[in-house]
Amino acid sequence: MHKLTIEEKASLTSGATTWTSQAAGTIASMHMSDGPHGLRYQGSEGDSLGLGASVPSICFPTAAGLASTWDRDMIHKVGAALGEEARALHVSMLLGPGLNIKRSPLGGRNFEYASEDPFLAGTYGTAFVKGVQSQGVSAVPKHFAVNNQETDRFRVSADVDERTLREIYLPAFEMTVKQARPWAFMCSYNKVNGVYASQNHELLTKILRDEWGFDGVVVSDWGAVADRVAAVKAGLDIEMPPSNTDHKIVAAVRSGACDESVLDTVADRIALLAQRTQSSRTGEQHDLQSFAETHDELARKAAQESVVMLKNTGILPLSTSDTAPIAMIGEFARTPRYQGGGSSHVSAIRVHALVNELRSALPNRTITFAPGYALTQHDKSAEASDESDAQRYIDEAVDAANRAAIAIVNVGYFESDETEGADKTTIELSDAQNTLLEAVTATGTPTVVILSGGGVIQLGQWADKADAILEGWLLGEAGGAALADILIGAVSPSGHLNETIPQQLEDNPSYLHFPGSNGHVLYGEGLYVGYRYYDTLNLPVAYTFGFGLSYATFAYSNIKVEVIDGTHAKVSLTITNTGNCQAAAVPQIYVRSNQPDRPVHELKGFARIDLAPAESRSITVELDARAFASWNIEQHRWRVYAGDYTVEIGTSSRDIVSSTTISLDGDHYVAQLQTMSTLGEWLANPYGAQILKPFVDKVRESVADPSPEMAAIFAQMPLIKLASWGVGLDEQQIEAMATAAQRLAETASRQ
Amino acid sequence: MHKLTIEEKASLTSGATTWTSQAAGTIASMHMSDGPHGLRYQGSEGDSLGLGASVPSICFPTAAGLASTWDRDMIHKVGAALGEEARALHVSMLLGPGLNIKRSPLGGRNFEYASEDPFLAGTYGTAFVKGVQSQGVSAVPKHFAVNNQETDRFRVSADVDERTLREIYLPAFEMTVKQARPWAFMCSYNKVNGVYASQNHELLTKILRDEWGFDGVVVSDWGAVADRVAAVKAGLDIEMPPSNTDHKIVAAVRSGACDESVLDTVADRIALLAQRTQSSRTGEQHDLQSFAETHDELARKAAQESVVMLKNTGILPLSTSDTAPIAMIGEFARTPRYQGGGSSHVSAIRVHALVNELRSALPNRTITFAPGYALTQHDKSAEASDESDAQRYIDEAVDAANRAAIAIVNVGYFESDETEGADKTTIELSDAQNTLLEAVTATGTPTVVILSGGGVIQLGQWADKADAILEGWLLGEAGGAALADILIGAVSPSGHLNETIPQQLEDNPSYLHFPGSNGHVLYGEGLYVGYRYYDTLNLPVAYTFGFGLSYATFAYSNIKVEVIDGTHAKVSLTITNTGNCQAAAVPQIYVRSNQPDRPVHELKGFARIDLAPAESRSITVELDARAFASWNIEQHRWRVYAGDYTVEIGTSSRDIVSSTTISLDGDHYVAQLQTMSTLGEWLANPYGAQILKPFVDKVRESVADPSPEMAAIFAQMPLIKLASWGVGLDEQQIEAMATAAQRLAETASRQ
Repeated sequence: MHKLTIEEKASLTSGATTWTSQAAGTIASMHMSDGPHGLRYQGSEGDSLGLGASVPSICFPTAAGLASTWDRDMIHKVGAALGEEARALHVSMLLGPGLNIKRSPLGGRNFEYASEDPFLAGTYGTAFVKGVQSQGVSAVPKHFAVNNQETDRFRVSADVDERTLREIYLPAFEMTVKQARPWAFMCSYNKVNGVYASQNHELLTKILRDEWGFDGVVVSDWGAVADRVAAVKAGLDIEMPPSNTDHKIVAAVRSGACDESVLDTVADRIALLAQRTQSSRTGEQHDLQSFAETHDELARKAAQESVVMLKNTGILPLSTSDTAPIAMIGEFARTPRYQGGGSSHVSAIRVHALVNELRSALPNRTITFAPGYALTQHDKSAEASDESDAQRYIDEAVDAANRAAIAIVNVGYFESDETEGADKTTIELSDAQNTLLEAVTATGTPTVVILSGGGVIQLGQWADKADAILEGWLLGEAGGAALADILIGAVSPSGHLNETIPQQLEDNPSYLHFPGSNGHVLYGEGLYVGYRYYDTLNLPVAYTFGFGLSYATFAYSNIKVEVIDGTHAKVSLTITNTGNCQAAAVPQIYVRSNQPDRPVHELKGFARIDLAPAESRSITVELDARAFASWNIEQHRWRVYAGDYTVEIGTSSRDIVSSTTISLDGDHYVAQLQTMSTLGEWLANPYGAQILKPFVDKVRESVADPSPEMAAIFAQMPLIKLASWGVGLDEQQIEAMATAAQRLAETASRQ
Repeated sequence: MHKLTIEEKASLTSGATTWTSQAAGTIASMHMSDGPHGLRYQGSEGDSLGLGASVPSICFPTAAGLASTWDRDMIHKVGAALGEEARALHVSMLLGPGLNIKRSPLGGRNFEYASEDPFLAGTYGTAFVKGVQSQGVSAVPKHFAVNNQETDRFRVSADVDERTLREIYLPAFEMTVKQARPWAFMCSYNKVNGVYASQNHELLTKILRDEWGFDGVVVSDWGAVADRVAAVKAGLDIEMPPSNTDHKIVAAVRSGACDESVLDTVADRIALLAQRTQSSRTGEQHDLQSFAETHDELARKAAQESVVMLKNTGILPLSTSDTAPIAMIGEFARTPRYQGGGSSHVSAIRVHALVNELRSALPNRTITFAPGYALTQHDKSAEASDESDAQRYIDEAVDAANRAAIAIVNVGYFESDETEGADKTTIELSDAQNTLLEAVTATGTPTVVILSGGGVIQLGQWADKADAILEGWLLGEAGGAALADILIGAVSPSGHLNETIPQQLEDNPSYLHFPGSNGHVLYGEGLYVGYRYYDTLNLPVAYTFGFGLSYATFAYSNIKVEVIDGTHAKVSLTITNTGNCQAAAVPQIYVRSNQPDRPVHELKGFARIDLAPAESRSITVELDARAFASWNIEQHRWRVYAGDYTVEIGTSSRDIVSSTTISLDGDHYVAQLQTMSTLGEWLANPYGAQILKPFVDKVRESVADPSPEMAAIFAQMPLIKLASWGVGLDEQQIEAMATAAQRLAETASRQ
């Protein structure tokens, strides 16, 4: 390996083509391919931007859907299926999963991301990576890090405080690295606190490799590298696509600006990756038609589990024996919205339209279709429309509804609203769709609303009048079939929201700080992202994080929370299906701390339990120490403070079934007393109090009238300040006291 | 001067005593004294902490009151009176005014600060400093900078983004420096973005002196210096009080760690200050009894103007001819709350109690007094009380109210709630006071509520039932008299809120980020402080910024907004008193920009116009370019962007009388095109478009299907990224294009 020349090693630091890594010596070239919910294979070269047509493949639900399953097994299966397809094409690196936090519902790529919550996103990432890599194909978790918007994405600096970085924006990546050991990683376009992610040594080396133990290859997002040499030195292995500037790396090594050992390390890592993915390049390369049946079926199951039922007055499931006519309204029921735009856009092998699927599922019922609205305003491929057209669509839909026993209306975002490269500007439906929904619900015909879109949609007035609302996300090619399955009750809905649905966009905590300006976006809401904000302020929301209805009901019993070693806990509970159909419950575990300056509670565990009617199952979930920890920005470490914590079991972040308060001993970490420690801190510390005792009375004497205000001032005063204030202590003495306190603490800790 | 030895010069860098600067050579020692609303003179030595008893002086309204006058003349007069008192005592430096922004209503020193708005605070600071210095005494604006809380005040790092620092936390200091040229300044205890204010070169030298032109002396807050040498090098002149560590400065000069010229500069500045304040140390030193009448009268006038009438159903003013009995309820009416705790606490010469003053003002009416509540829970000097006592107080008050035609209830914060050194934890009244108010308003006797306290108070249910509400702040020694003057209509209320009264504490934008933890406080709300937040989100509030009722009414006419030179504007309007009494109007000018990422509007001008019934006056207010500017964090400069601005005239931030949209040419600053400028920016720039033209078509060709999504991706792509993407451009060519664009722009600007 190290017999490679400098030029050969430098050549490894960028791709050979838009979609392949460079070969050198014994190191094989590897093919990479988008994307996280379906292969977007363009051959070795691709078009120059890598965004053109690709070979047909199976389109699975996007992350917005798949992460709503809260089903580790299902996510693993989808990952494995994608790995299988990649192998078939000799693709060694699958560019996904997307693990960025949904900071704002306007985020243009939210459809590719898993959650507003890092624990859910990390669990998703872990299962996905394990699935992909079970096939000998490298997953490439992306976009590392703090890439939560598309606006100015190539340049914007995400200005985020250290604690928020550690508690919100990194943990999904951290959990995935530690639990699934991905072989590769993708850095993001943006800067983090002023430093490009592609040349961010803190992120790519100190945190990712040194702290978390990542031993794989970091590739750049396509075009993310600003300074080749800085990037390689920071820990980036491969620039994609190649910018034909490897000579800069060579020159840097020759001039001594970059140590040759840096290139050796890159070569070692790429060699390891090539070795790890070797099996992905064996066997005959073939297209993906062979997966058309089995993977379409998997895509359908994944989609079934992705759907979140938000409301149901009892209208669902639809009776299969009833013959009353149904009005199916909405162009999306005929022309499905099932994926977003940009690098993840695949050429689906077979797309199931809801209206067709429902007709097959309910052969005895007349199902009339009315488009309700046109794609026109949003899609140049449709014909031009004007206001009278819009009214005609609505009239036709109302007419259909009036003549039916039930109306089902499929609305949502248009594809052009949801794409890599641009953020949304609203979370409201188009005026035409809102008008349509008002008009249909006004007919008095019971109405089911199905929302399609890669992110949450603000509900209109019509929501109160609708009899059922299904959040249908972007469900992949089999989404129409899955929705039909749910509508007729072939399966119960079991999805739960991975993102809060706010009452209005303005309620979102990032609202005033998104998407920033002049090259910076301030993460001003800090830790208070998603439900951490809404729940801490107890703000009304439309639907809370973790929410999702079922056709069944569930009972929780035998709830027990045990403290283990004083440092962490174990939760056990029994769930019983008290309903009449097979269905899955998603019990969620939130941890509530009474420490100040923390969100009111945070998701730290969950399970998905599939149960037949009357079936019971008991589960146990471990909450490790990290579940109780917060990041201390003074000590730059995770801390578990001694004290009380409440473990909540809920069916959403606000539907808490049970709360148990436990007491932890914490991590026993004691901060050393310093001369800048306050009198209050000295007196609260046993060694400090002992040393300080003789002076405390003196201080008290020196103040004529020790009022409560004075006491408050004293408690906050750093000890060193006494040196100026005539109580018979000078700087040297105070420094000696601090040393003495530290010695007493050390002596005690040795005993 | 420069003949001083190193030791002598070093001795100048700290005080001689707790209250005096060091003399050296021909440089005189100067006496300093708290505080911003009254002299707290303790002689030369003081007690060791400088917080003990002081000689009697006049207590003026605290800043929370005085800034509510929106009266530059009155603020100047109070400043001048304080200057006079200082001279009498040979005090050369008066420690004030306090110009920090009221970021949270919990801020422990808010009573000493002027506003949540930097323009109002800066106007206050300017008038105050001019007043003090008109007497040959140096004002010492404090606490520089970003010192907006008391919690952990000696150590906490205020983590604030550059734009917020420039637009919110610095401008009050900046305006005061530029317009009033203070001779001294006080640095704060806290760190700003990790660096102690006392050793912050960016603040003390780069911004304060180099940018703003400050040529005076910076003293430390008492005990604020952490590192003597770093402080002197950063621009701090005098450490207060002395820590007896001048030898460190000497050693640093001897070792070369600190250039001797740094000390020469310090000596020069202190010599200049001594010279400027020379007249303050001439004449006979005498106590302040001679001001007892005239300054008490001024304090009364200032207090009259400070009171803000929040509500009045018509019950006020009280008739002076009516003889129906009045119930005066509330211990504060007998034992006034008129100042806060800590360094600004003065020994007032004469305190006017409201109950006595009202009895004098209404000799024909029976005024019964009932304390209503005890100071007990909050003041150890009062006797112990228990629940039955509390009920007895309320019963007695209800009894008094039942037997009276009108009840006047004075409630508010207790002194121990409001002090330097500790922040509040609530903005609600005590339970006892809220219960009292509910009980009294429930009697059906018309009720006037008077609030006393140095900050806003959350209104209870009782507010709807009260017939009038007066915000009485901490009004200084003559507050009781001033309130009586207003109650009987001898003067009309004219104060306006300098701070929004929110519906509840949780609505405040800093709520989730105050007061921080682990040594840091994140200014996460950024620019959105006070009404900038409430008004941008259009959140309901109890009373909006700038609000204040009068016994008169006013009409606005002839409103004209003229653009001057395309860069700024002039507003003229006529105000007519359409009421029946002498009264003052406070027209406020807000500027609204349609640029994204800006508060919806900001206060940029105001006037206070005192008018007799039927009197009219026309005024003109200039809005300079800065009134339209925002700070660009990429260019690190103020920018006025070309475009439309709306100039609003209001009687509060939400009671807008008139809106005029004007168009400004802006500052004509054009950012140079760079290789990292986006395709969108290149095409929007005339020179860029010209150079890029030949390649645009090529780029378009290279994309098979240029959908709208694709167009969005393109617009955001930095030009340099094309080097990787096969459109026939390499890095060198793109760099040459940027150079060419810059040249074209330069050529054009020369023509």
